[in-house]
Amino acid sequence: MSKKLTSRAEDYSKWYNELVVKADLAENSAVRGCMVIKPYGFAIWEKMQAELDKMFKETGHQNAYFPLFVPKSLFEAEEKNAEGFAKECAVVTHYRLQNDPDKPGKLRVDPEARLEEELVVRPTSEAIIWNTYRNWIQSYRDLPILINQWANVVRWEMRTRLFLRTAEFLWQEGHTAHATKDEAIEETKLMNGVYAKFVENFMAIPVIQGVKTESERFAGAEDTYCIEALMQDGKALQAGTSHFLGQNFARAFDVKYATKEGKQDYVWATSWGVSTRLMGALIMTHSDDNGLVLPPNLAPYQVVIVPIYKNDEQFDAISKVAEEIISDLNDRGISVKFDKRDTLRPGAKFAQHELQGVPLRIAIGPKDLDNETVELARRDTLSKQTVILDRIAIVVEDLLEEIQENLFNKALDFRNQHITNVETFDEFKHVLETKGGFLSAHWDGTNETEEKIKELTKATIRCIPIDSKEEEGVCVYSGKPSKRRVLFAKAY
Amino acid sequence: MSKKLTSRAEDYSKWYNELVVKADLAENSAVRGCMVIKPYGFAIWEKMQAELDKMFKETGHQNAYFPLFVPKSLFEAEEKNAEGFAKECAVVTHYRLQNDPDKPGKLRVDPEARLEEELVVRPTSEAIIWNTYRNWIQSYRDLPILINQWANVVRWEMRTRLFLRTAEFLWQEGHTAHATKDEAIEETKLMNGVYAKFVENFMAIPVIQGVKTESERFAGAEDTYCIEALMQDGKALQAGTSHFLGQNFARAFDVKYATKEGKQDYVWATSWGVSTRLMGALIMTHSDDNGLVLPPNLAPYQVVIVPIYKNDEQFDAISKVAEEIISDLNDRGISVKFDKRDTLRPGAKFAQHELQGVPLRIAIGPKDLDNETVELARRDTLSKQTVILDRIAIVVEDLLEEIQENLFNKALDFRNQHITNVETFDEFKHVLETKGGFLSAHWDGTNETEEKIKELTKATIRCIPIDSKEEEGVCVYSGKPSKRRVLFAKAY
Repeated sequence: MSKKLTSRAEDYSKWYNELVVKADLAENSAVRGCMVIKPYGFAIWEKMQAELDKMFKETGHQNAYFPLFVPKSLFEAEEKNAEGFAKECAVVTHYRLQNDPDKPGKLRVDPEARLEEELVVRPTSEAIIWNTYRNWIQSYRDLPILINQWANVVRWEMRTRLFLRTAEFLWQEGHTAHATKDEAIEETKLMNGVYAKFVENFMAIPVIQGVKTESERFAGAEDTYCIEALMQDGKALQAGTSHFLGQNFARAFDVKYATKEGKQDYVWATSWGVSTRLMGALIMTHSDDNGLVLPPNLAPYQVVIVPIYKNDEQFDAISKVAEEIISDLNDRGISVKFDKRDTLRPGAKFAQHELQGVPLRIAIGPKDLDNETVELARRDTLSKQTVILDRIAIVVEDLLEEIQENLFNKALDFRNQHITNVETFDEFKHVLETKGGFLSAHWDGTNETEEKIKELTKATIRCIPIDSKEEEGVCVYSGKPSKRRVLFAKAY
Repeated sequence: MSKKLTSRAEDYSKWYNELVVKADLAENSAVRGCMVIKPYGFAIWEKMQAELDKMFKETGHQNAYFPLFVPKSLFEAEEKNAEGFAKECAVVTHYRLQNDPDKPGKLRVDPEARLEEELVVRPTSEAIIWNTYRNWIQSYRDLPILINQWANVVRWEMRTRLFLRTAEFLWQEGHTAHATKDEAIEETKLMNGVYAKFVENFMAIPVIQGVKTESERFAGAEDTYCIEALMQDGKALQAGTSHFLGQNFARAFDVKYATKEGKQDYVWATSWGVSTRLMGALIMTHSDDNGLVLPPNLAPYQVVIVPIYKNDEQFDAISKVAEEIISDLNDRGISVKFDKRDTLRPGAKFAQHELQGVPLRIAIGPKDLDNETVELARRDTLSKQTVILDRIAIVVEDLLEEIQENLFNKALDFRNQHITNVETFDEFKHVLETKGGFLSAHWDGTNETEEKIKELTKATIRCIPIDSKEEEGVCVYSGKPSKRRVLFAKAY
């Protein structure tokens, strides 16, 4: 198989698409805009799921499951949310197919089996969930409700890309209900912080936590917190969002509770989610022209052992050593694959594991047996070393930690080098075109200016960083006074 | 809250429905036939998922994810499968809503946004998966493919019941591809065996492994293996199925491979699945008139501690003891909930935990503190004992094992007492009406007789047990010769 990728310098977008397919992560399906997540890609997603799930439970959340479908009348109840998603939703109108009288062997929708009310395939679940919460909440004693759901959602995007933007994607969506505004805002921030911690510590991707401007908010939210990452091509990627929904959904679905003082009040809401889009962020942050580079935390197997042999006798002797290494590594909680396939030569195996981003590769040949050594190769730096057999487990253990850190630090350096303070609109455009990355600039706070800048440069306000400091300045576009810098970037 | 359930003797069906809702497992939603799985119910399902997932991986399977939608042209490609599911499928016809010009604030499907080809919401994924496998399989080297998917599916059932039959349900579906017929049949049997082991050892539900008759087979299968369980009302419940699909889907989707000898041949297929229906089996096998009874393996928390106190000082002293117990139990891998709520009296807590099937309850009051004892209550037998504090961890550990075994043995006794050999059709009808359960009877092997018996008695052939012995006899209905008994029952 021709595994050679287009280089990033040549065509970043093509490099990404090729990598996703050739590294066996995902592929397009027969359904427009929907992807097949292949076993290797899914194993990475499962690791993300497991860690996030643990973090959600540690912060007091429970999982539940709500219906895939949203009846139209519920979908339209919260006006802004409905408006935001109406243009891109899949709608079920019939519940039966029948033989097509005009085309033998073919089926058609049965015109008699039209639903009385259309069902929207959930693009997000606020509507169906808040309609349910109404019956769960009577008094302050029933609050807070802290629920998460792992689910598939559908948004009928016209231009799709594997992982980054697909008509169907997998995600988790948290939906919480609170007695007070303050508590709901705390929850919104808490979960944005959980996302930041997960993406930085587990995925080795540095992020900036911030708040969205009004025009970039989730449809139906009062405030949207986000984590923004920077890809190697200088474009930003929104990696997770957490929304303070105010009382909007409680009003739309009439969810009131009796306060401790015996009054009736609407409930306060949040929602928050990350999706298989994170796979795109993972790929575009760490990978190189040879293929995927995986942080050890996310690797389906962290180490691969490739035997190099000419005959069965050599293979048996190497296998014995390999099994000992595997046992040692497993005892340390390190996952290992012994690639015994006899249908591929070692060189082809090396290329495949490099393409698939296995963090460490151990090669064992006859000479290694004689010397009681192995050859150890790092995927992140592509460097090799000879290691004494006795020390291999401890060396691997240390290196995996080092690689995890190294990937984060490398990405952090790149990100930090790509945050540029700009003071004029000429400078803004120049930096955007030549260097890319985040532009830290003053903005007058109006939708009009934001819209105009987007129109002229394709850059959007990614966020107002939560740690940004007050600073007197003038808007980079309008020259009007501004008290705070915001981050602009072109984005996925 | 009135938690008292209708008794099983009074109305079994009502008892079931009430239990599901009152024990906080699931409830009906605003979408016809679709359920909301509540956190407590979902926590049980998560435990099933985790164990099954482990078993699938141990038998060499990997997870992946395929699209929710099946384009109509793929759906209709395997004729029998299409015929089997066409009558109950949800169909997406449009990809956009718009403001309804006649009704301000309301939406309608946008007539301009009609899909060129309708999309069926997957009722099962053979079609979309085999269409994908075509590109994955060229040669015998690409086989076997051993993939599982955790997903939601939709079958537009007209009469639904929580967990047992819902329009949308959660399940796993394995889809494997093999070079030979024998290997595919082995896989079919292997996975049916995995299901049997899981349901018996983990869920404490005894099952009979068998093969379905032609009329009860999965649409598109050559053979369907199943596990059949018996509920307390004498009705059977199909708890899992594993299908040998022959080359049907390979032919329908043109999936060929080059054999070792260089010939082209169609690939052999299996599929297998269990669903949230298992929750129904769990409830109806073990529970009683007081509510849910959970095998310790499946309990979201295996032990609950209820403090009994009159003042803060007592509460603090009890909490100290409780925390020590929790720490000891956690060290043994036992999950514990300390029910500190000050909004409920101990009696109300007892009732709730009984209703929710927590296997063991520890109550600690001031007298217990003086005596260095606790009160320990078993959910399965409703018996209580006083235990010396020093011994509580070891007693709990032993009891949890005993409860798991006891539940299985109790269900096994019941099941075995409800397998009746019948020789005449009068006897058949009599036993079916008075005692229920499985009727082991001779059958002439024809669809006609099977259909007639179903029409007259509502009993169906649940399976031909895999360990059934050859035995000369005559069909219980037609009097024609038969070589083997099969199991009849009324079924869910």
